[in-house]
Amino acid sequence: MSNSEIVRKSHFAGAQSSPLKTITLTTDFGSRDGYVGVMKGVMIAINPDIHIIDLSHGIEPFNIAQAARLLSANYRYFPDGSIHVAVVDPGVGSNRHILALHADNHLFIGPDNGIFTPFLKACELLRVHRITNHDLFLKPPSTTFHGRDIMAPVAAKVTAGMAVAEVGEQVAPADCITIAQTIATVERGLIRGEVISVDRFGNLRTNIDQTLLARYGYDALCVCIGDRRLPLVGGSYQDLAGVEAGALINSSGELEICAPRESAAHRLSAAAGDEVVVQLPLSSTAPSSSPERA
Amino acid sequence: MSNSEIVRKSHFAGAQSSPLKTITLTTDFGSRDGYVGVMKGVMIAINPDIHIIDLSHGIEPFNIAQAARLLSANYRYFPDGSIHVAVVDPGVGSNRHILALHADNHLFIGPDNGIFTPFLKACELLRVHRITNHDLFLKPPSTTFHGRDIMAPVAAKVTAGMAVAEVGEQVAPADCITIAQTIATVERGLIRGEVISVDRFGNLRTNIDQTLLARYGYDALCVCIGDRRLPLVGGSYQDLAGVEAGALINSSGELEICAPRESAAHRLSAAAGDEVVVQLPLSSTAPSSSPERA
Amino acid sequence: MSNSEIVRKSHFAGAQSSPLKTITLTTDFGSRDGYVGVMKGVMIAINPDIHIIDLSHGIEPFNIAQAARLLSANYRYFPDGSIHVAVVDPGVGSNRHILALHADNHLFIGPDNGIFTPFLKACELLRVHRITNHDLFLKPPSTTFHGRDIMAPVAAKVTAGMAVAEVGEQVAPADCITIAQTIATVERGLIRGEVISVDRFGNLRTNIDQTLLARYGYDALCVCIGDRRLPLVGGSYQDLAGVEAGALINSSGELEICAPRESAAHRLSAAAGDEVVVQLPLSSTAPSSSPERA
Repeated sequence: MSNSEIVRKSHFAGAQSSPLKTITLTTDFGSRDGYVGVMKGVMIAINPDIHIIDLSHGIEPFNIAQAARLLSANYRYFPDGSIHVAVVDPGVGSNRHILALHADNHLFIGPDNGIFTPFLKACELLRVHRITNHDLFLKPPSTTFHGRDIMAPVAAKVTAGMAVAEVGEQVAPADCITIAQTIATVERGLIRGEVISVDRFGNLRTNIDQTLLARYGYDALCVCIGDRRLPLVGGSYQDLAGVEAGALINSSGELEICAPRESAAHRLSAAAGDEVVVQLPLSSTAPSSSPERA
Repeated sequence: MSNSEIVRKSHFAGAQSSPLKTITLTTDFGSRDGYVGVMKGVMIAINPDIHIIDLSHGIEPFNIAQAARLLSANYRYFPDGSIHVAVVDPGVGSNRHILALHADNHLFIGPDNGIFTPFLKACELLRVHRITNHDLFLKPPSTTFHGRDIMAPVAAKVTAGMAVAEVGEQVAPADCITIAQTIATVERGLIRGEVISVDRFGNLRTNIDQTLLARYGYDALCVCIGDRRLPLVGGSYQDLAGVEAGALINSSGELEICAPRESAAHRLSAAAGDEVVVQLPLSSTAPSSSPERA
Repeated sequence: MSNSEIVRKSHFAGAQSSPLKTITLTTDFGSRDGYVGVMKGVMIAINPDIHIIDLSHGIEPFNIAQAARLLSANYRYFPDGSIHVAVVDPGVGSNRHILALHADNHLFIGPDNGIFTPFLKACELLRVHRITNHDLFLKPPSTTFHGRDIMAPVAAKVTAGMAVAEVGEQVAPADCITIAQTIATVERGLIRGEVISVDRFGNLRTNIDQTLLARYGYDALCVCIGDRRLPLVGGSYQDLAGVEAGALINSSGELEICAPRESAAHRLSAAAGDEVVVQLPLSSTAPSSSPERA
């Protein structure tokens, strides 16, 4: 069965009998200015029979990479057939495209600016359309708020049964924009990565994932940040008792640096972008000098 | 057909067959103290078959004018028949009235303190009731949280089919409180307005709207703030490339001052209340010395 | 009819005919990192036919007592049969238990760390289960995010008709963890309490409640904080007009210290934890030297 056939039978082919129900929103809009609320208004005016769930509106303004990571780490916890609208869109109103990207039984709608990089690089069965059908937009669409005028109505219309193919021409995934992802590398017995974000608790999330660590076993690993050498502890925050700070595998499968009931960012004076190095055991057999992913 | 007849046939006359489904909330409550959540609890306990959408809870405490602007700029993106509950209510518990205001097929519920000024001044077909029917309130209503004890249950009961007329006596719009709105003026070839708010991106929204600007054409206009003279660019943020800052018409139809991928507020050291002046072309034929609206 | 019989006939016995519809969330997760959104995704993937309402995600990190107070003050405004998921869980992944606590026709799900202290101490008809049935969890559950992997799916499955008894063994309320609650005391003509939280408006909420004050009558009471003596005013914020600050009974039945259209916290340089003393009238007949509750 071809990719095309699979998609045709998916949730997004326009069947009227089982309308979709979930739309998530990920933006850099914050919650103060009403931008998010008005997008929801547009959507329920088209289809009141939906769930709209905020994934985050606290993405740093214009930080496309942060939104990309949040989406790719979390979309799979939503029901199959969910639509994820992602609006971190510094190029709004320019000639950048808007995409509807179907991957892994979820649909992603957002600007073609790299926000869907993790899917474009890692998913095999992708189907991507450019959203160009003006009949679906609010009229006239503004030049500064396509989340409200284009993405919200298109998402809502898909939940109401419209086939994704109605949004516009299909394009090759290779024709879509991707951004550089900071990827951990392995070289000379060291995994080199970095802090990708700091959460509300001050935990330092890194781009070193458990798949990579598992190649070397978790024993005898030592995690370095700044001038600190920290232990890689067992499963939970409780295992940090008695240490100033330590590392563990978090609920997204990432190496995370934490301090017991305290902000590790504050305790270690660390921030996003800081280098994190994992020292592998000497017996490690992994090939050196190669990046994690080809 | 009279105003009264129109209203009688509207969404809010109490028809049981098609219950309303959308309530929006606009408050200065923030999101930390549980005030918003408990209002939602009261509403769904009365009618679980509703959508409740947050427009904003980040209104500056007691800033009635900010809430008024946000509501009037955005209500029309919600479905006809929506109920908009607005709680910026420094006079809660005093003898100030509470209103249910029907305008443009939407219903607005909130204190009679000027929060509905834009509707009272601009809408022709208004129908206003004072909410006085104690049978509809939580018992006993507190003196400090009428959002929870009066406005939430009344809004929910209207969605469940209760006629608006049940809330209390109808009053003349002229008997309701309005607040002074800062309005742009035109004089001697200059439009004088001000920054009304700064959004999360640092964009400076003004009270100069496109209807006014369109009278003079958009060409050759120059926008001044502080000691800066800024160009009025084309449609989108992309058109700002290469300039320190510029002005455009935003998605609410307002003149907005922006900096490319940066906070204009920070770049220009500007804030809400700052004067903004638009220099009209010399050939302008508009009458001078008259305010924008009679 | 025994406690057990009452519960068996309650909303939570697993009847399929009238599924529950409301889940509230109270956490210290903030809104930026996506933790809340992903919990909602897990829940609606199990049962899309629910309301999920945020009570607060702004609990101070690890502040179990703050969450306990917020929940106990507000749960009763939600419909009977609501499920309240509370995740302030510094011990996640340790051997702490997770509870499903049925009280007053509501169900509470959260860690056994004292977050349910007000119910464990004050409610008579309690039924408590430990959540141990791994068949109900996401697989494999992480060690750092039980809100997503255990509490969310369990709550959703109860809304879908699963009997609470399915979650695991029933335990005695006395076997559950409670935390010390700061309780106002009465001694020698003084009620001694403290500021328990400061809300967005700068109002100082205290642990002195109206039930206690009512024993002495509200007249001639004087409220002291720091070196200030403040009047106990009538019902509403309006009654503060003309004073620097004053106290009133707020919408949760607590003594609250406020300043007119201003932050009392700022005006009085006060914060959570500050002592608040109420001077009783000399004729007070209450017994001295006894704490408020036995």
